[in-house]
Amino acid sequence: MYSHSEKSQQLLSKLSQFMSEHIYPNEIRYAQALHNAPRRFAPLPLMDELKVKAKKAGLWNLFIPEEHAQYSEHGGLSFVDYAPLAEVMGRVIWSPEVFNCNAPDTGNMEVLMNYATRKQQDTWLIPMLSGDIRSSYAMTEPQVASSDATNIELSINTDGQEWVLNGRKWFITGAMYERTKIFIVMGKSDPDNTNRHKQQTQVLVPKNTPGITLVRPLTTLGYDDAPIGHAEIVFDNVRVPLENVLLGEGRGFEIAQGRLGPGRMHHCMRLIGSAQRALELACKRVSTRVTFGRPISKHQSIRENISRCFSEVEMARLLVLKTSNKIDAEGVSASVDMIAATKTTVPLLVQNIIDRCMQMHGAGGLTEDYFMAEAFNYARWCRLADGPDEVHQMALGKSIIDRYAAK
Amino acid sequence: MYSHSEKSQQLLSKLSQFMSEHIYPNEIRYAQALHNAPRRFAPLPLMDELKVKAKKAGLWNLFIPEEHAQYSEHGGLSFVDYAPLAEVMGRVIWSPEVFNCNAPDTGNMEVLMNYATRKQQDTWLIPMLSGDIRSSYAMTEPQVASSDATNIELSINTDGQEWVLNGRKWFITGAMYERTKIFIVMGKSDPDNTNRHKQQTQVLVPKNTPGITLVRPLTTLGYDDAPIGHAEIVFDNVRVPLENVLLGEGRGFEIAQGRLGPGRMHHCMRLIGSAQRALELACKRVSTRVTFGRPISKHQSIRENISRCFSEVEMARLLVLKTSNKIDAEGVSASVDMIAATKTTVPLLVQNIIDRCMQMHGAGGLTEDYFMAEAFNYARWCRLADGPDEVHQMALGKSIIDRYAAK
Amino acid sequence: MYSHSEKSQQLLSKLSQFMSEHIYPNEIRYAQALHNAPRRFAPLPLMDELKVKAKKAGLWNLFIPEEHAQYSEHGGLSFVDYAPLAEVMGRVIWSPEVFNCNAPDTGNMEVLMNYATRKQQDTWLIPMLSGDIRSSYAMTEPQVASSDATNIELSINTDGQEWVLNGRKWFITGAMYERTKIFIVMGKSDPDNTNRHKQQTQVLVPKNTPGITLVRPLTTLGYDDAPIGHAEIVFDNVRVPLENVLLGEGRGFEIAQGRLGPGRMHHCMRLIGSAQRALELACKRVSTRVTFGRPISKHQSIRENISRCFSEVEMARLLVLKTSNKIDAEGVSASVDMIAATKTTVPLLVQNIIDRCMQMHGAGGLTEDYFMAEAFNYARWCRLADGPDEVHQMALGKSIIDRYAAK
Amino acid sequence: MYSHSEKSQQLLSKLSQFMSEHIYPNEIRYAQALHNAPRRFAPLPLMDELKVKAKKAGLWNLFIPEEHAQYSEHGGLSFVDYAPLAEVMGRVIWSPEVFNCNAPDTGNMEVLMNYATRKQQDTWLIPMLSGDIRSSYAMTEPQVASSDATNIELSINTDGQEWVLNGRKWFITGAMYERTKIFIVMGKSDPDNTNRHKQQTQVLVPKNTPGITLVRPLTTLGYDDAPIGHAEIVFDNVRVPLENVLLGEGRGFEIAQGRLGPGRMHHCMRLIGSAQRALELACKRVSTRVTFGRPISKHQSIRENISRCFSEVEMARLLVLKTSNKIDAEGVSASVDMIAATKTTVPLLVQNIIDRCMQMHGAGGLTEDYFMAEAFNYARWCRLADGPDEVHQMALGKSIIDRYAAK
Repeated sequence: MYSHSEKSQQLLSKLSQFMSEHIYPNEIRYAQALHNAPRRFAPLPLMDELKVKAKKAGLWNLFIPEEHAQYSEHGGLSFVDYAPLAEVMGRVIWSPEVFNCNAPDTGNMEVLMNYATRKQQDTWLIPMLSGDIRSSYAMTEPQVASSDATNIELSINTDGQEWVLNGRKWFITGAMYERTKIFIVMGKSDPDNTNRHKQQTQVLVPKNTPGITLVRPLTTLGYDDAPIGHAEIVFDNVRVPLENVLLGEGRGFEIAQGRLGPGRMHHCMRLIGSAQRALELACKRVSTRVTFGRPISKHQSIRENISRCFSEVEMARLLVLKTSNKIDAEGVSASVDMIAATKTTVPLLVQNIIDRCMQMHGAGGLTEDYFMAEAFNYARWCRLADGPDEVHQMALGKSIIDRYAAK
Repeated sequence: MYSHSEKSQQLLSKLSQFMSEHIYPNEIRYAQALHNAPRRFAPLPLMDELKVKAKKAGLWNLFIPEEHAQYSEHGGLSFVDYAPLAEVMGRVIWSPEVFNCNAPDTGNMEVLMNYATRKQQDTWLIPMLSGDIRSSYAMTEPQVASSDATNIELSINTDGQEWVLNGRKWFITGAMYERTKIFIVMGKSDPDNTNRHKQQTQVLVPKNTPGITLVRPLTTLGYDDAPIGHAEIVFDNVRVPLENVLLGEGRGFEIAQGRLGPGRMHHCMRLIGSAQRALELACKRVSTRVTFGRPISKHQSIRENISRCFSEVEMARLLVLKTSNKIDAEGVSASVDMIAATKTTVPLLVQNIIDRCMQMHGAGGLTEDYFMAEAFNYARWCRLADGPDEVHQMALGKSIIDRYAAK
Repeated sequence: MYSHSEKSQQLLSKLSQFMSEHIYPNEIRYAQALHNAPRRFAPLPLMDELKVKAKKAGLWNLFIPEEHAQYSEHGGLSFVDYAPLAEVMGRVIWSPEVFNCNAPDTGNMEVLMNYATRKQQDTWLIPMLSGDIRSSYAMTEPQVASSDATNIELSINTDGQEWVLNGRKWFITGAMYERTKIFIVMGKSDPDNTNRHKQQTQVLVPKNTPGITLVRPLTTLGYDDAPIGHAEIVFDNVRVPLENVLLGEGRGFEIAQGRLGPGRMHHCMRLIGSAQRALELACKRVSTRVTFGRPISKHQSIRENISRCFSEVEMARLLVLKTSNKIDAEGVSASVDMIAATKTTVPLLVQNIIDRCMQMHGAGGLTEDYFMAEAFNYARWCRLADGPDEVHQMALGKSIIDRYAAK
Repeated sequence: MYSHSEKSQQLLSKLSQFMSEHIYPNEIRYAQALHNAPRRFAPLPLMDELKVKAKKAGLWNLFIPEEHAQYSEHGGLSFVDYAPLAEVMGRVIWSPEVFNCNAPDTGNMEVLMNYATRKQQDTWLIPMLSGDIRSSYAMTEPQVASSDATNIELSINTDGQEWVLNGRKWFITGAMYERTKIFIVMGKSDPDNTNRHKQQTQVLVPKNTPGITLVRPLTTLGYDDAPIGHAEIVFDNVRVPLENVLLGEGRGFEIAQGRLGPGRMHHCMRLIGSAQRALELACKRVSTRVTFGRPISKHQSIRENISRCFSEVEMARLLVLKTSNKIDAEGVSASVDMIAATKTTVPLLVQNIIDRCMQMHGAGGLTEDYFMAEAFNYARWCRLADGPDEVHQMALGKSIIDRYAAK
């Protein structure tokens, strides 16, 4: 089996215990707190309570990789070592934030670790690492197919000592959240550059910069994912100092490439946990529910479906681990095929697994009484997040064909 | 082809025109009105406006079947004649109410036409037919698998001149709606009757009767379906006069049998319209969206998926029509197999069709900017409404096996 | 429901009786006769016996459409009227020949009715109508994607008073059959014509013409479909008189267009019968087989699968009937979308239905003891016959997108 | 990644080279030799040639596990170490016999290693290990659902110093093969034993014992799998000495339990190789085939399908490896859930992968010109071999439900 380091195993054990003591028992309380919150996207006091406990338990910033060990107390974890931890967090949709391990902040922190100046890090990375502020990554645009990054239209121009941004973004996760203070914005600074991968630049834009309008929170399948949310945002002559650039003008595409692969893997890791929990809930349900005189666990069709769910969770988990292992050993660039295979396979599998588990719960399975409906939504939008699956299948298919094509 | 009467065709033409003039152009306005409504389950003035127009246009109570012609101006429509009308209404989730054709009121009105006393009809049916009040059908319970009606536990006992109700219901569509005034409640009045189909009774219970508590609105996949909603309700020593019984004590199961078949068909008819519209939206989308230098309509995978969606919509529609035709010719009881085939096939097909069409829209396809996400939710819960598909497949499978079994 | 004429209903009743009396009881005998035949592709005496009976019963040439009524005793049948008859024949893979209704002869006879000269008809059509000889339609080539007819490479050149053919064909159904005497060969006579649809010509080539080599019989999934078979053929300087041309030089594409649509529909009609019979066999099987103490018909998963099979057969049949109805009313050209929808949907559905029914039979379901394995093969190759499904989905998808595209 | 020992890697490298030098280049020759064989189930000289070479290359009896190291030159291989070797053999359906690694002989040899007396081993095991003779395992019966071993009806009674066998078996792989000399027969010796798992006994029965009739070879999807074959056999008062019993009277069930798990795994390992090769062939095909002016490798739908096939092969392989690893570490009994998950998942996945790859080949994909059609058949019958998938899903589903059921 894929072997996890002793450190990973100890953290897993501690994390599982923390979930049992502090997360599962608070699921209802969290739902009510959110329901009764004065403002839909305000931070919840319960979250702050739990974050304190997680820090104290040494379950903080678990996403930090080995090469950035200095930013963590645990000393950094490989992909393979982080996978089972992210899986466990995926069992409760809102729990990753408790451990400062939620998207998009983890990816954004990595960007800042990799590419930010010391001053940028002091201002933004440090409070993100401590969980004091949150961040967004503003890339997707409504007017163009953003999966092809060269389509991006938000303009970033220099004017004196400032960048001036004009354009519209949407699906900007976290932007609605009141705790969010900083946006990493990808735009086009040099649209006429013949190298289409040098046209983009990324800059740091404080959320309260004049000219930024949060147009609305977007929903997916009826969910607004509050208090995090996904925003539509207009940038109207938004000005930031030149020093806010990341890495350098024209290097936005390069940053995006490095950022998105790991982000996709983290989603898949968490989705394994969602599927596993749905399966466990379904087992509990069918063992207690009686129809026509016998528990539905005795129906052959139920057993076949549970059997299918189990086998698919196993396979999805193994695929995540193999890809993680390859990233650890060979890096993200050498692993693009396996990342694409994982990203285009796991969310769809998980969507179908959860669909079956919801069905075994009867109508209640679609409600907020279980975590499944929200997890179904999570799996569904992951098939479109960071590029629709079809774009990744195009690249993967091409690569595999080339690998075996008649020479 | 299945032939629709001239009356049906004329109504269809008028209805399609009405949709173009009054419904599609108001979709955004409706969404905003709902969003800004002072109370989540309050009637929307826009709905009342549109209802006036629909009445004036002769597009009112289109669901009324031929045997109850006296309640309609149009003289009654067969199932086959109603099917294309319901399909068109299914193109906008909230539009059936505009024409007084929404669930669960249509089914409830049929119950009252069939089984209510003259006095009950004067009090409740007449204002329902005019659209002044709405109603709910309270059958499903959270504690038991209500697909097996003999499981129902809400107790209905006589005490002097009154029925006394105690129990809990959920997924009671429309109960949250402020315009709703009356519940038809199914309960158990004679739990020890050896004939398990004589244990149930249905009574009329005004919503404002003391002892009724609307516990909460339920969501499915993140949708609360406001302002109609699905409620959880507690009945705590709720008392109504003996005369409020429908048809007679111990005849609740009989009423339920007659009511649910047509209701399932109406859902399927509307879902065809939802799928057809999703397909049309997808065609528009792929013909305008450009990636990697060409419209995505030129991708072979897009064409294959559009082709699949088209073929499946065709088949689903034909199945609905064949079953409708059989009901018209032979009645509901003789058509249970075909109703089960339709109920267990169409929602799942439509869910998958819409899933593909959402995917072709990119992330936007999951939002409230299109009707697809809500229609996806509609298709999904129809796989559990009126009994999970599996219960109907059990009955249908058994029947087909018996039909061809070795003698 | 789709209404079948009285004539069709009477023929159906007679045909069903004939199947019960003469076909089903001879299935084992036929299998043994084929197994013991002296030569694999020799005509079977049993077939001749049955053909005599079918003729006598008035069940002969049922495929003949109304516009060619003069060639039949029954006076011609519409597509809708022929559909249920072809379905019944589809219940036994080899039975269509008994009624002179087997592919590819039916399509070839139609070509000759439509396009042949009187002399050509006297020589070839008349003995085909009587069942004395059989024919092949030689279009597909191994080297090129023949689904795009303009790819075809077999050359047809004039040399004096003769056509000279050179090239290779494969999947030429019937060519191995010893009773087959005539090939309709499609080739390229004018490869430089700027109109790509005028480059092809079709000529009549007697099977015994010098230069023809039957290279080998091809198998699909292990079946050689003897005694009919699918051949690979080489044409090496094969010469036939100029008068053997069909319709005229450069009109081969036009003939192919008209021929293939109806042929695809006939396959689908028969496949409905194959699926229906597999379903009936599965019902018999599960009602008699006992595992772990009870008949497997009581397993919920079996009932769900039977339910699925029933519903899918219903939908597939309805799609065939709707398309048939459209062809009857508007002709083949106006029905290309519906023909494509049918051709790309029915074989795949039937393959999956039969797969489930085989599974319910245990290992025996895959053997020659039931007709299912061979019917599975039939459905499978229909997904590639007359052009792979994907080519038809490309055309259908394009057409539907155009229909609804944003203007 | 799962780590394979250096020994395994060296053997893999040698085996791959052997395939390239001796197996792939002989595929056509093998097919022709089989086609032209004087008797359908006679050994082929080509096979003997290749076996000599394989022995010489040290690629012999690779299946032998570590605990039986004494029977091999290579010193025994764990499940994980054997998996990639079996995968490579799965790339050519008939190649495992070249390495003395074909079913059912490998399983039978293991039975003899585990349970046979020294004398039995000398007589039968030794010549099997050298490849001189072949064997069959006679368990399945046509009249009963043999997946429930307690259903087995062939009677084994003692009469003096002999066992007397009466009954009928089918799907007895290898029994038709002329090289096969010995059957391991499972029957019922004590049908009234209240312990249903003590009723069965297994005995060694030489194929040429009087009373044995090979009724016929069975086909699956048209394949007779010659020269190995699957036979139907009648045992009519077949007598063998008492010493021919394996392990002891009443211990047949125990032997079957131990034998079948590994056998299922070996099938899955080989099927991975079949799927991998189909994928590679499809890549070659789409990179060379042109339709409508461009290679079909550029179609988005082709790329999506290749992408799907690749991801599924990866997952299937990982599942096989995880289960293999568990068997190595904890034994077969502790691994029954994972074996069931593998057995019910891999063949179906592989069937679908190959189906897509065949479709990408056009009609030729179904013929004997590629190995895919036969591999499709292999995957298909594995869904029924050693018990239909549904029986294993029943057990696995039950076990998983118990694991997570509400306590």
